[in-house]
Amino acid sequence: MKKTSGRLTLPSENNFLKETEELIARLGADAIRDSDGTKLDEETLSLPVKVYSTYFVARGHNEFAKEHMEECQQFYLMSKRVTAFSHHLEIPYMDGFFRKQVTPDFLHDPKKWWELIDRTTGEVISPERWRLSPDKFVKSSGEKAEASKENSKSSTEETKETGLPSYFLQDGETALLILEDATPFHEYTLSFLAFALWDPTEMYNHITNNWGDKPADIPFDIRKPYSNRFAKEELKRWLEAHPKTDVVRFTTFFYHFTLQFNHEEKEKFVDWFGYGGTVSVEALEAFEKEYGYRLRPEDLVDEGYFHSTFRTPTKAYLDYMDFIARFVAKEAKELVDLVHAAGKEAMMFLGDNWIGTEPYGKYFKEIGLDSVVGSVGGGATLRLIADIPGVRYTEGRFLPYFFPDTFYEGNDPVPEAMENWVSARRAIMRKPVDRIGYGGYLSLAYKFPKFIDYIAEVAEEFRDLYEKVQGTKPYAKLKVGIVNAWGKLRSWQAYMVAHALYYQKAYSYFGILEALSGMDTDVEFYSFDELLEKGVPKDVDVLINAGDAMTSWSGGEIWKEEKLQSLLRAFVYNGGGLIGVGEPSACSFQGKYFQLADIFGVDKEMGFSLSTDKYFKTAKTEHFLLEDFPAENLNFGESQKSIYALEKETEILEYSDGSVHLSAHDYGKGRGIYIAGLPYNMENTRLLLRALLYSAHKEKEIRKWQCTNLACELHAYPEKGIYAVVNNSKEKQSTDFYDGKGRKHSAELLPGAMHWYTID
Amino acid sequence: MKKTSGRLTLPSENNFLKETEELIARLGADAIRDSDGTKLDEETLSLPVKVYSTYFVARGHNEFAKEHMEECQQFYLMSKRVTAFSHHLEIPYMDGFFRKQVTPDFLHDPKKWWELIDRTTGEVISPERWRLSPDKFVKSSGEKAEASKENSKSSTEETKETGLPSYFLQDGETALLILEDATPFHEYTLSFLAFALWDPTEMYNHITNNWGDKPADIPFDIRKPYSNRFAKEELKRWLEAHPKTDVVRFTTFFYHFTLQFNHEEKEKFVDWFGYGGTVSVEALEAFEKEYGYRLRPEDLVDEGYFHSTFRTPTKAYLDYMDFIARFVAKEAKELVDLVHAAGKEAMMFLGDNWIGTEPYGKYFKEIGLDSVVGSVGGGATLRLIADIPGVRYTEGRFLPYFFPDTFYEGNDPVPEAMENWVSARRAIMRKPVDRIGYGGYLSLAYKFPKFIDYIAEVAEEFRDLYEKVQGTKPYAKLKVGIVNAWGKLRSWQAYMVAHALYYQKAYSYFGILEALSGMDTDVEFYSFDELLEKGVPKDVDVLINAGDAMTSWSGGEIWKEEKLQSLLRAFVYNGGGLIGVGEPSACSFQGKYFQLADIFGVDKEMGFSLSTDKYFKTAKTEHFLLEDFPAENLNFGESQKSIYALEKETEILEYSDGSVHLSAHDYGKGRGIYIAGLPYNMENTRLLLRALLYSAHKEKEIRKWQCTNLACELHAYPEKGIYAVVNNSKEKQSTDFYDGKGRKHSAELLPGAMHWYTID
Repeated sequence: MKKTSGRLTLPSENNFLKETEELIARLGADAIRDSDGTKLDEETLSLPVKVYSTYFVARGHNEFAKEHMEECQQFYLMSKRVTAFSHHLEIPYMDGFFRKQVTPDFLHDPKKWWELIDRTTGEVISPERWRLSPDKFVKSSGEKAEASKENSKSSTEETKETGLPSYFLQDGETALLILEDATPFHEYTLSFLAFALWDPTEMYNHITNNWGDKPADIPFDIRKPYSNRFAKEELKRWLEAHPKTDVVRFTTFFYHFTLQFNHEEKEKFVDWFGYGGTVSVEALEAFEKEYGYRLRPEDLVDEGYFHSTFRTPTKAYLDYMDFIARFVAKEAKELVDLVHAAGKEAMMFLGDNWIGTEPYGKYFKEIGLDSVVGSVGGGATLRLIADIPGVRYTEGRFLPYFFPDTFYEGNDPVPEAMENWVSARRAIMRKPVDRIGYGGYLSLAYKFPKFIDYIAEVAEEFRDLYEKVQGTKPYAKLKVGIVNAWGKLRSWQAYMVAHALYYQKAYSYFGILEALSGMDTDVEFYSFDELLEKGVPKDVDVLINAGDAMTSWSGGEIWKEEKLQSLLRAFVYNGGGLIGVGEPSACSFQGKYFQLADIFGVDKEMGFSLSTDKYFKTAKTEHFLLEDFPAENLNFGESQKSIYALEKETEILEYSDGSVHLSAHDYGKGRGIYIAGLPYNMENTRLLLRALLYSAHKEKEIRKWQCTNLACELHAYPEKGIYAVVNNSKEKQSTDFYDGKGRKHSAELLPGAMHWYTID
Repeated sequence: MKKTSGRLTLPSENNFLKETEELIARLGADAIRDSDGTKLDEETLSLPVKVYSTYFVARGHNEFAKEHMEECQQFYLMSKRVTAFSHHLEIPYMDGFFRKQVTPDFLHDPKKWWELIDRTTGEVISPERWRLSPDKFVKSSGEKAEASKENSKSSTEETKETGLPSYFLQDGETALLILEDATPFHEYTLSFLAFALWDPTEMYNHITNNWGDKPADIPFDIRKPYSNRFAKEELKRWLEAHPKTDVVRFTTFFYHFTLQFNHEEKEKFVDWFGYGGTVSVEALEAFEKEYGYRLRPEDLVDEGYFHSTFRTPTKAYLDYMDFIARFVAKEAKELVDLVHAAGKEAMMFLGDNWIGTEPYGKYFKEIGLDSVVGSVGGGATLRLIADIPGVRYTEGRFLPYFFPDTFYEGNDPVPEAMENWVSARRAIMRKPVDRIGYGGYLSLAYKFPKFIDYIAEVAEEFRDLYEKVQGTKPYAKLKVGIVNAWGKLRSWQAYMVAHALYYQKAYSYFGILEALSGMDTDVEFYSFDELLEKGVPKDVDVLINAGDAMTSWSGGEIWKEEKLQSLLRAFVYNGGGLIGVGEPSACSFQGKYFQLADIFGVDKEMGFSLSTDKYFKTAKTEHFLLEDFPAENLNFGESQKSIYALEKETEILEYSDGSVHLSAHDYGKGRGIYIAGLPYNMENTRLLLRALLYSAHKEKEIRKWQCTNLACELHAYPEKGIYAVVNNSKEKQSTDFYDGKGRKHSAELLPGAMHWYTID
């Protein structure tokens, strides 16, 4: 294989020129980048490669921000729940929050913008009934917007003396809400507007790395006049000042995903998708003007759940997201246009202040970005990046970061890199990112020559792979649609809370996405609403509904919608497959828990139908789904209890501890399949493939473009006349495999190896 | 110990006189009884003991019943769910039912009394839209009641020819409902009235024992005129014909608990509490007249759940139960009066046709029974019998039955008898039944002399115990209230489906009742409604709410009732204890799952609050609750997942697999305690005791009238100045124990032994 180059971005740093040059040559890199903690010197910037420069739009300019503290970003916060033990109730509503991060907004009338709720009844307590101590809101003559400006001006003065504007809570002040006619033994919460004083990512880095006295980056809100003007002028200035930058890497635009710390400086709330940081009085007023109705604080606070993606979104919240996303796209486009006008490319980092720029959202394309770069945790996160529509190229940042937590003496960083690469490679075989890259301190990685050797191999393999698979459609055995409340917007992002982190309630479902990311199937994401509006697309072979009951992923109350039930029944009846994982279509209604129990052939016993005898408890031992590995290797993760077969025609494929965990059921010309959970592993990947094929009556595909060994996969590219057999494991593997005509061959593959063949 | 006699009932049988006499003397029996399969001959009946005779009111008289098939008992049945795949829908609504047991009622207008429901929407389909094939309803000139009588007369003729009245489905006929404008891909069910042709207990015995050609006992309904008159006249005749009977043992009165078989003659539906067999057109019409509203079939069919006790009862269903119970009490009283007039006692068997006579119901006392006899499966079922108010005496029928399944060559029946006795004895120490007895074939037991020796010991021990504990209040460490939707009516009967049988979804809660049945605490059962009406009674120390979410036991939607929340908070705040097991107070509302999470200090993560960090994961290793046995012996049965502590003040006592399973939490002067499940065993009995004491701040009671060894219990009777130390195990035990003054003593006890002491 001849040495290739390109499609690789390396981090660099000051005073590392010679080694950077050496590594560029060695690894075939064609771009270098700076990052949060590293700057590049002039000589490095002059190397004959592209230069990426990190750019922050809405933070990192405290000299500006401090002059306009009234333009800080905002949150709706919900106080802890406080029980009234008499008629007198006090809520110390800042308890549990990190006062360096957030402070109550007294610039805007709390009586108008805050909401005290009796959480025992859900009733909103009239603002006339409560008071605040201290109450820093200054009722001025005219409109509150005026008041805010007045306040901000006068208080800016004070900032210089005390460090905090007078309308902010001062050190030592306790923020209290007082209600004198509470109902004893009811619980209350206060939803209140707060200003954000610290950018969450900078706060996280600051606290994690003990940056000490370094001032907190104050996040300002470009919806507000000074900030909006500043952001654009500052970018112009910056572009002029950085002639050697080729790619402006926005990290990111305006609003950070919701990340709050607590009074002990520990993470309190994290939602990678959360719109919590986008709110402001200006936004709420603009929303009301446009949509004709006013949002209540509760429309955003959502009982304290703040519309995590596990919640089925309300209409108000969807409206609000749309409103924000449209605004963000419009404003981001202006910045991108400036970048283009300066002759540079605009790249977006997928994360941090990415709220409103979700790449699968309606307005993303309008921003006009050249590219998106994101962190790759495995196959699903790779596809999350690679499948992004509307950009010229995508880039995956691979693990490990060149940070001291991995690159320390005595540790070998290669295994982590290998696991990351091999799991992502499965996905690349289906849809490659256009570039790969790394982050951190290049000087650190340089001290690990075996690691450099390994990533040199990775870069070579990536380029070779990219050359072969880019722009050609890999063979797909069928097309799968994932159905949940979010659909396309959250493509490859279902079941995520913090980006790609493990959650006990998620991994048994996230495994489906990870398995699919590198499987020879096409995958699309559909929302219930989309199906209701347009029906199941004709090219879909199998639909998957997976999740815990009442979550957005399973669907909850939407299953009472007769049209949804009917169209899925029709889909399967006419030959489609339906796979349910966990608690699919679950919602107690009209005598069933799984509303599509008739398709699955199983339902879940919730205690109400214990009187009805359950007869079917014997699992088949031979079945299409069970041909690849012994039953004891079945692993349903968190699994389910009390799933029972409805009729003897249900094919029970696993039964233990009083419950079915795997089953199949004919329904018209199609089939329903139930799986209790599907964490990611090789066995479950194969099980899912077989379930997909069986549900759609495509069993024959298991002998076409298919390896027999679970550790290996085969990807065929008929247009190019080539196919690859891949060893996904760290061990040597032998496998038989079937080509496109069903002929059997065999191969021996070294750990992680890949063999290419020509289609004859 | 001197030999005693009395308080023991033995079964006898024909041609077993000498041995019966011998056993009466040997065991000290003072009563003999016949049963379903045994009759007593004249000489046996003349023995100098009381004679119990089984009496069936509403079955066993086919010569009458066959002349009045229109007076057969009735059911509402729900057809299987049938999906329409086009506009033409056919429901073969008798599919899956046992046609020898039930047949559709064509005497009463199906268009009026049946209900076709679209189960995809819940909509009732107008009866004008469907038709039946065959449709045997004869539209006569006048009222349907007339029609029914007309039909019944004409058809009685036909009975003699074909064996079935013409208005019944004939052999080979398929019962179809036909709808021509169904909505494709909707599911439908037909709720229809049916006649019961076979008494369920007799059917069960008949099928189980292969009674072949023996005709089925037809159940008639004493709400109907001929049956009502017949039942009373027949009882009078019978009383005259049975001068030697001392006790008429009603088995039972009029309506059997719901028990249906399927087309394969296997149990299809069983609910020991089900009112399914009480329905009739006459009852529905009388109900409407009295209550001013008409019941829909769905009010009884309940989506096919038929109001299992796991369902939170609706107002309509509670009204209906009350209506039936009142009727049954009134009619039963007439029969009991006849028995008394004949100089005999009236005893009721707790089971079979017992619907409407529930002993903890409002009207039970009015029946005027002398006694109730019931089957004892363990401590809770013993207390179910022993605690019955309003009768002169109670009797427990102990296990094993003298049947060939236990009494066969090579088997030793003693261990089963011992286990039954020792588990029931715990409960007897708290509240004794007044008599014990056995059932089955005495001749069989006679062949097992060691067994006879053992039950002789049991009888002696029971009489001795009874002498000591009857009529005196045992010392109670505190008073416990069990709170659920049913309250007192289902005292000791919570979590039951079929009488005392194991269910996977029940045992982790039923263990609470079994543990309490023999614990030195007072126990009462409260419904939510009762608490809402009267508050928590002053003498209650601890309340327990235990069950799966949304069941009647946990409570479901009632937890949105602010008054209920408030009064329980006030109760604990002022010093009460609250113990939650499983999913207590669970109902998603206003940001919580456990509505009393603030008391328990824990809530369950349903996926919506994954964004909120959970900090508290470390279990205490030393705690009042954990002093008696090692943590690895904790057994939460089916247990729970995703239970998390809300604050650091929550005392986590067990944490594993990402979940709290045992915790305690201060709330005002009281405490909340959470337990993930509590199947019955010695460890959990002690754990529950400690939880009760801790929750009510009565920890000191653990050194008063208390054994240290888990296998032993102590019961004190201060009024009598005595106390007993009991070995509940089959092994020899040594134990320390504390007397009422906290002084420590010790004892060595043989397997199952009991030592009595005098209080000094």
